[in-house]
Amino acid sequence: MIKIIVDCFGGDHSPEANVDGAIASLGKFEDLHLILSGDEAIIRRCLEGKQWDASRVEILHAPQVIGCDEKPTDVIRLKRDSSMIKAIRLLRDDDSVAAMVSTGSTGALVAGALTRIGRLQGVIRPAFCPILPAMNGGIVGICDSGANVEVTPDHLRQFAIMASLYMENVYGVSRPRVALLNVGKEAEKGDELRQTAYKLLQETSEINFVGNMESRDLLSGSYDVVVCDGFSGNVLIKSTEGAALELLKKLKKDIYSRFIYKVGAALMSRMFKEEKEFMNYQNYGGSVLLGTSKVVVKGHGSSKAVAVEKCIEQAYRMQVSALSAKIEEVICKYEHYEQ
Amino acid sequence: MIKIIVDCFGGDHSPEANVDGAIASLGKFEDLHLILSGDEAIIRRCLEGKQWDASRVEILHAPQVIGCDEKPTDVIRLKRDSSMIKAIRLLRDDDSVAAMVSTGSTGALVAGALTRIGRLQGVIRPAFCPILPAMNGGIVGICDSGANVEVTPDHLRQFAIMASLYMENVYGVSRPRVALLNVGKEAEKGDELRQTAYKLLQETSEINFVGNMESRDLLSGSYDVVVCDGFSGNVLIKSTEGAALELLKKLKKDIYSRFIYKVGAALMSRMFKEEKEFMNYQNYGGSVLLGTSKVVVKGHGSSKAVAVEKCIEQAYRMQVSALSAKIEEVICKYEHYEQ
Repeated sequence: MIKIIVDCFGGDHSPEANVDGAIASLGKFEDLHLILSGDEAIIRRCLEGKQWDASRVEILHAPQVIGCDEKPTDVIRLKRDSSMIKAIRLLRDDDSVAAMVSTGSTGALVAGALTRIGRLQGVIRPAFCPILPAMNGGIVGICDSGANVEVTPDHLRQFAIMASLYMENVYGVSRPRVALLNVGKEAEKGDELRQTAYKLLQETSEINFVGNMESRDLLSGSYDVVVCDGFSGNVLIKSTEGAALELLKKLKKDIYSRFIYKVGAALMSRMFKEEKEFMNYQNYGGSVLLGTSKVVVKGHGSSKAVAVEKCIEQAYRMQVSALSAKIEEVICKYEHYEQ
Repeated sequence: MIKIIVDCFGGDHSPEANVDGAIASLGKFEDLHLILSGDEAIIRRCLEGKQWDASRVEILHAPQVIGCDEKPTDVIRLKRDSSMIKAIRLLRDDDSVAAMVSTGSTGALVAGALTRIGRLQGVIRPAFCPILPAMNGGIVGICDSGANVEVTPDHLRQFAIMASLYMENVYGVSRPRVALLNVGKEAEKGDELRQTAYKLLQETSEINFVGNMESRDLLSGSYDVVVCDGFSGNVLIKSTEGAALELLKKLKKDIYSRFIYKVGAALMSRMFKEEKEFMNYQNYGGSVLLGTSKVVVKGHGSSKAVAVEKCIEQAYRMQVSALSAKIEEVICKYEHYEQ
């Protein structure tokens, strides 16, 4: 039995999307049990009229609501009865619970996970690893994408190890090609951080380090994992998504500028729909937090049911693949975390 | 008379594209004089059979060739007779020469410009400011995009001042909206560097600071200048270009997957051509180096004649608008460079 808590509040489409996604995921895995966290009466209303296996769903009543502008530290301190903080506490305290999924405040989730749940043995800094679709049909993981704005070469090596094991164990990518995000391909490019990290990554025999990557090649399909500090990782992923979406938006607008284009576009409507689906991050799940002692998956704030379902699937696969133990095994060869 | 040196070697399409672009630019500005730097015999061959005003063109014979993998410091020291280094020396020594344009090695150009040409009064670090098209038809300047991998809040303020004056004086953007690249919009987002820079930018009355920008909004048309360290600026610009180009490539490939798409695409061919032109950086000139005591414009290594022509136009407009004096005037209010 794999038990996962779903924080049902905090996203743009919560609680309906979160509850719907949760129910859908039950159909995928027979041994999956869910704990839905949030205001019980509201969650029960969302469940009304739906088919679901009551023996595999519990509700964790958490009536408090987190406001949009609340500081992460205030949330942890003052919102102990909110759906997110109660979920984090249960995840920490109950050995039978494996993971949690949330679409709420990223800052509060990271702060709560780090202070309440803690890290795997040897891990210095947990890091986010979202997934983007590569243009050749594959996927690429970006680690870190925002949990750590400032990092050291040692952190970058750990991100590489964790993300490589994640892609291998959860997505079945064999010997993931790991690249370091840099301003040029040559080994001596970038600042001291990148130059030292390059050497450390080269020395790490457990990963398949293929050198520096320039950001223009992110979607090329030549890389499975990109390692970076959280600031530039955040820039990388948001500008890639932003450019693709802005371009699709412009195409759509331009199509309406001439009748003949509208005719052409009508013939291609299925293709455009497929492109939009292909770029839709809802289909690629959430951003997993690698390196915490229990599995935490952060769904996008705008997650719909399908995205929540994907997040639960990610959490499930991380747990059944025993990813955490594998991470500890490799990390401990290189860094012994000093308590 | 505005005299500009064009380094005719070092780009993928040099010397032909550089010579052709140079000749084309002569037709645009009557008072433009050019010095073509490079192997004289080869340049003369490129000029053969073309129409050009000989009274406005000189050749600076520079026979030495710079290899692809040469270190910038070696180039400066050992390739004194190369087209780039001779151009830099002439720019430094001849008061009548206003600017230079090069499509050669970025590292060598930056190193040469900094050590040989020097900075404007008060400028701590010159920075690159390339231009991208915004999806609303406007443009956006990104400063720095790679000259300074590590920066301080003071540097970021200077980048903001220089880029804002550049957009105003060279592109006629009135009160350019200046944003700080960050991981979120709120003032307290990011590391100490970003938080301090935010405050400095707010205090700087000569610029129209509009707050933090997330990278996904780069092309939205809501910003005229984006200020960032050279590392994340490089990531920003290359991932934006990369995503747009990869997506267009994927569309093209998918079009060929079904007959009906091919018919649709045929009806839309003019539109697709326009989109491609719109995204083609060749049309937006080069990356100007702001803050050097004479104007330096770096064209993309893959510049064709039209891009070289644009670079020369940028250099010309920087010179006639007296941008350097305006930068010094504002910069000196905030920072006095210590010799």
